[in-house]
Amino acid sequence: MGPLLRLSESACVRLAEALLRASGAPHAEAELVAGDLTTSSLLGVDSHGMLRLPEYLDQIACGSLVPGAAITVQQRSAATAIVDCGYNFGQVGARRAAETAWRLASEAGIGCAVTLRCGHVGRLGSVVEWVARQGMLAVAACNSPVHGHFVVPFGGREGRLATNPLAYAVPCGGEPLVADISTSVAPEGKIRTYLNRGLPLPEGWAIDAAGRPTTDARAFYGPPRGGLLPLGGASGHKGFALGLLVEILGNTLAGHACTDPTLKGNGLWVLAVDPAPFVPPQRFRQLVDELMDYVKSSPPAEGFAEVLVPGEPERRMGVQRRQEGIPIDAATWAAIERHAARLGVSLAALAAEAPG
Amino acid sequence: MGPLLRLSESACVRLAEALLRASGAPHAEAELVAGDLTTSSLLGVDSHGMLRLPEYLDQIACGSLVPGAAITVQQRSAATAIVDCGYNFGQVGARRAAETAWRLASEAGIGCAVTLRCGHVGRLGSVVEWVARQGMLAVAACNSPVHGHFVVPFGGREGRLATNPLAYAVPCGGEPLVADISTSVAPEGKIRTYLNRGLPLPEGWAIDAAGRPTTDARAFYGPPRGGLLPLGGASGHKGFALGLLVEILGNTLAGHACTDPTLKGNGLWVLAVDPAPFVPPQRFRQLVDELMDYVKSSPPAEGFAEVLVPGEPERRMGVQRRQEGIPIDAATWAAIERHAARLGVSLAALAAEAPG
Repeated sequence: MGPLLRLSESACVRLAEALLRASGAPHAEAELVAGDLTTSSLLGVDSHGMLRLPEYLDQIACGSLVPGAAITVQQRSAATAIVDCGYNFGQVGARRAAETAWRLASEAGIGCAVTLRCGHVGRLGSVVEWVARQGMLAVAACNSPVHGHFVVPFGGREGRLATNPLAYAVPCGGEPLVADISTSVAPEGKIRTYLNRGLPLPEGWAIDAAGRPTTDARAFYGPPRGGLLPLGGASGHKGFALGLLVEILGNTLAGHACTDPTLKGNGLWVLAVDPAPFVPPQRFRQLVDELMDYVKSSPPAEGFAEVLVPGEPERRMGVQRRQEGIPIDAATWAAIERHAARLGVSLAALAAEAPG
Repeated sequence: MGPLLRLSESACVRLAEALLRASGAPHAEAELVAGDLTTSSLLGVDSHGMLRLPEYLDQIACGSLVPGAAITVQQRSAATAIVDCGYNFGQVGARRAAETAWRLASEAGIGCAVTLRCGHVGRLGSVVEWVARQGMLAVAACNSPVHGHFVVPFGGREGRLATNPLAYAVPCGGEPLVADISTSVAPEGKIRTYLNRGLPLPEGWAIDAAGRPTTDARAFYGPPRGGLLPLGGASGHKGFALGLLVEILGNTLAGHACTDPTLKGNGLWVLAVDPAPFVPPQRFRQLVDELMDYVKSSPPAEGFAEVLVPGEPERRMGVQRRQEGIPIDAATWAAIERHAARLGVSLAALAAEAPG
């Protein structure tokens, strides 16, 4: 692999928007998706950042992702809805699901949306963070269908679940508290960044197809494919239980079979909880701030400088990458160049402000 | 410690009911609590079983647990409610919260209840299982106030959260799927069973007050007290994030400060989700069954005989203990005998059918 290219935040946004627009995305959709991919990369969540841009462009080219597709909301009860995303961008469908859950919660105190035909959602934290910025607590779960079943059940050696992330966001005095965790030890997208960079995996993440521990990303991808381990190590039954809940909320509740080979993209479940029926919202924010201060007041354990709350490492990376630029790995850049050539988009002008 | 005493399921229920009744509990409450403690012990969840009976009797004696206390439900939005449990038994308050969430979900598709002044809830799986038996999916979170903050934040060495369990239950063709997991590597109650039996703790569960790993339950309890590690080992930021969510749902949403020294018992958040607005309920149950079959079809990893779904190890233990009897550790039995003498209850007749 060659050296990493670095682009400024605004160059990433411009470049992604231009390629998405050239692929037929309406302006508002291109803006939302380009912003989301860039923010993910900025925060250091490379697995859900610019790495995904060529993947989305491929999907548009082959017709499995449909920019501009109509999104419909079916409401069959006061506080729930089904959001059919029509295989528009996952980020666009997920935003509509988040808006829907928030709207229902504005009326009923809580609201919940489940998606159908949703594309790749990207960074799940982004979905819940939007709800928290409207003043509500949000929890989201996101599954992937059978071809993404990389994660073995506790005690098993063949994948039966995807990395099935859970995310939540909570309004507080400053920037919302945002947590976004896969229910495996590591997300598949992170394995891909190790693969693209030619780096060995940390131990305890993956097994090969024969069920043996491996630190080789290629042995994980195969074929034949290996598996990712559920969160928890010796207590991996807990990570497995959480992953199973995500599958049930994101897929079973949507009425899909777990092995349906026709499914693609993600299944998303979003819950919005308005604090107002429970506690005055200003008091709630203040109590969340106090809780953050309290957990951070623990003296550090050996090998740590301080206690960080969820989302804090990402925010710090964001500050650093705003200065240093966003790294784009060589494999991703080569794929972006191929798409730019195909679509007649000039990258040179778009990436001009790149600091690195 | 002496050898374990074994009691039959019915002897446990009779004995617990008699002691609770003699302490002033109305019949329905004594029946619910005795049944819940017995079932927990039967399923092998000793940390939330008969071990707790003398604790509850102590609390009644000192007035911090109030059998027969009125429970009130305040509803300020269509799909949410606050359940003030008046420091009745936690199991009684939790059942009311579960009934409330279920009732709200029957009307709005989803429903959510948060408790105030709730006692020790016991086995959280029991709360969600009740909802699943009514045909709905349920998720619950349960926090404990500051004196129970045994669990260190990821990267810290002083406890800032309780073991904060998450549980869920899902209706399917047969017995509901029930998962009940602490967000620490191990629950505190399980440490207490090791303490009572004089056994060393597994590695990776606890640190002593100086922040060093320990397998000595006494070094964990202190004083000075050590800490429990969050779920996840090297990925302990995920267990910490989940524990923090439980604290926010169970305590912050109820309007309480995280360090309020006047709080006792548990804070409970229960969500009920009716599958009906999303998918025909019979189809939902069938899809959950298919998912269970699918995850169990993974060939076992080395050291495992088969893949078990959440709740399955407990069900198997239940079959075994129905035959062998329920073990009661010597410390718990001695405490039960003290209470029986104080309350004028004859244990000999109540425990007569004990098989062991």
